[in-house]
Amino acid sequence: MNKEDFFIKQFNNNSKLIGDDGAVIGEFVYSNDAFFENVHFKKEWFSLKQIARKAMLVNISDAIAMNAKPKYALLTVAIPKEYSKKDIKYLAQGFLEVAKEYGIEIIGGDTISNCKLDISVTIISTTNNPKLRRGIKKSDLLCFTGDLGSCKKDLRRLLSGKKISKKSKFYEPKLKAEFFYEASKYVNSCMDISDGLFFELERMSKQSKKGFEFFYEIPKRVGCSGEEYELLFSFEEKHKMKIEKIAKRYGIKLNIFAKAVEGRYKCDCKNHHFG
Amino acid sequence: MNKEDFFIKQFNNNSKLIGDDGAVIGEFVYSNDAFFENVHFKKEWFSLKQIARKAMLVNISDAIAMNAKPKYALLTVAIPKEYSKKDIKYLAQGFLEVAKEYGIEIIGGDTISNCKLDISVTIISTTNNPKLRRGIKKSDLLCFTGDLGSCKKDLRRLLSGKKISKKSKFYEPKLKAEFFYEASKYVNSCMDISDGLFFELERMSKQSKKGFEFFYEIPKRVGCSGEEYELLFSFEEKHKMKIEKIAKRYGIKLNIFAKAVEGRYKCDCKNHHFG
Repeated sequence: MNKEDFFIKQFNNNSKLIGDDGAVIGEFVYSNDAFFENVHFKKEWFSLKQIARKAMLVNISDAIAMNAKPKYALLTVAIPKEYSKKDIKYLAQGFLEVAKEYGIEIIGGDTISNCKLDISVTIISTTNNPKLRRGIKKSDLLCFTGDLGSCKKDLRRLLSGKKISKKSKFYEPKLKAEFFYEASKYVNSCMDISDGLFFELERMSKQSKKGFEFFYEIPKRVGCSGEEYELLFSFEEKHKMKIEKIAKRYGIKLNIFAKAVEGRYKCDCKNHHFG
Repeated sequence: MNKEDFFIKQFNNNSKLIGDDGAVIGEFVYSNDAFFENVHFKKEWFSLKQIARKAMLVNISDAIAMNAKPKYALLTVAIPKEYSKKDIKYLAQGFLEVAKEYGIEIIGGDTISNCKLDISVTIISTTNNPKLRRGIKKSDLLCFTGDLGSCKKDLRRLLSGKKISKKSKFYEPKLKAEFFYEASKYVNSCMDISDGLFFELERMSKQSKKGFEFFYEIPKRVGCSGEEYELLFSFEEKHKMKIEKIAKRYGIKLNIFAKAVEGRYKCDCKNHHFG
């Protein structure tokens, strides 16, 4: 077990709410994600606006995966001393742009001076039908949206000093909010793919107490690719056509790749953070 | 204006909820504070458990100052790679201890591997009578609890390599929850003193559109001392005896030091962070 998981394990007896993309309390969902320099990004790779946008989007992704609508955000932003006022304005613009696009009000947080740019975002969302990791039923079909693999490839290119496409999902995740809010009524279980498909499948397996029978082999370059922010969800076979119809309407590719069975699934990817 | 305030200013048009220790939404109060290595503490000064305890307490302090009861916490914890499992367990214990003492459930967050120990805590509290910074009325008496000055002195000692008392408030703030939950019904406006009395008075002055007539001179070593986490509040003179009676019962020292008048107050302390 890595140290981060070991830390989280210390809290598992404190709350049953730990273990999903967000914690559900009544109609509210609370999610929190860090976006730290030299852990999630290097400053040479992103503009400050892109950094702020991605910090917001990876958090909003959690809310969407739980079928929750983001309403409010709290920001911890640790800003390097050498940043100019122009830099700071540009950084703030990234947060504000995404907030506007998703109808989110930034209600507070904490701003400090630091040696590097470190961001932590808390998103407060509302839902009347939350989707959890523990909802997979036996014989459910497992599905992920979009294409996986490009973020791992792009990260490798950046790490070796090469450039990547400006449209790369590594710069800006392509969230599927409208599709999922509509499809979710046919969905049993969902989470977003932040650490890689195989990593997330292990988490779902643990929470849902199910294993997976794959329909085809998924290579590691696809299954271990983190930072994808695609949706991973399960549903009963009888809902397949309805979900496919909604996906088609929104132009979203679905990959139905496995079936839930009794058992447990273990992943053997390495942690994708490069820090 | 320093860069942190300049950053926060970018968001002021986005929300009217910014500007207090926490944001009030219905019966909930949301507060968020960072506790970063080499900004708020140096690792040589604290045990890991003390760091976790203080990270929690400075956030709980915000909730108390708003007359809100902390219920849930989300933690972003960035852990240095070299920490052992024993270190991590000890760190987690600090969070769990304080959570237990205040009846808080830790419901989630994010844990990452980082070059230093950086913590951001979001506290979700509930209240039916929130106290804000903008509530000061003309002729209100201004009051702070306890003694101010020791934290600045202790920080200086630590920075020059000297030791400080194990009981120092710099290690662990002495919160006044029970006193304030009872006294708050007579209080018009409140906040906690995290950046120093004079800093906070400027913030209250801005929010309440009032100035202050001091009853006696407060030296800078007292008024500019940050990290005190005492309460700063205002009330009408007619409630003075009732508040004093409650304070006496809880063994809490009150310092009634000024009266609210028309005008504006400006502070000239330096930022107390040493990073």
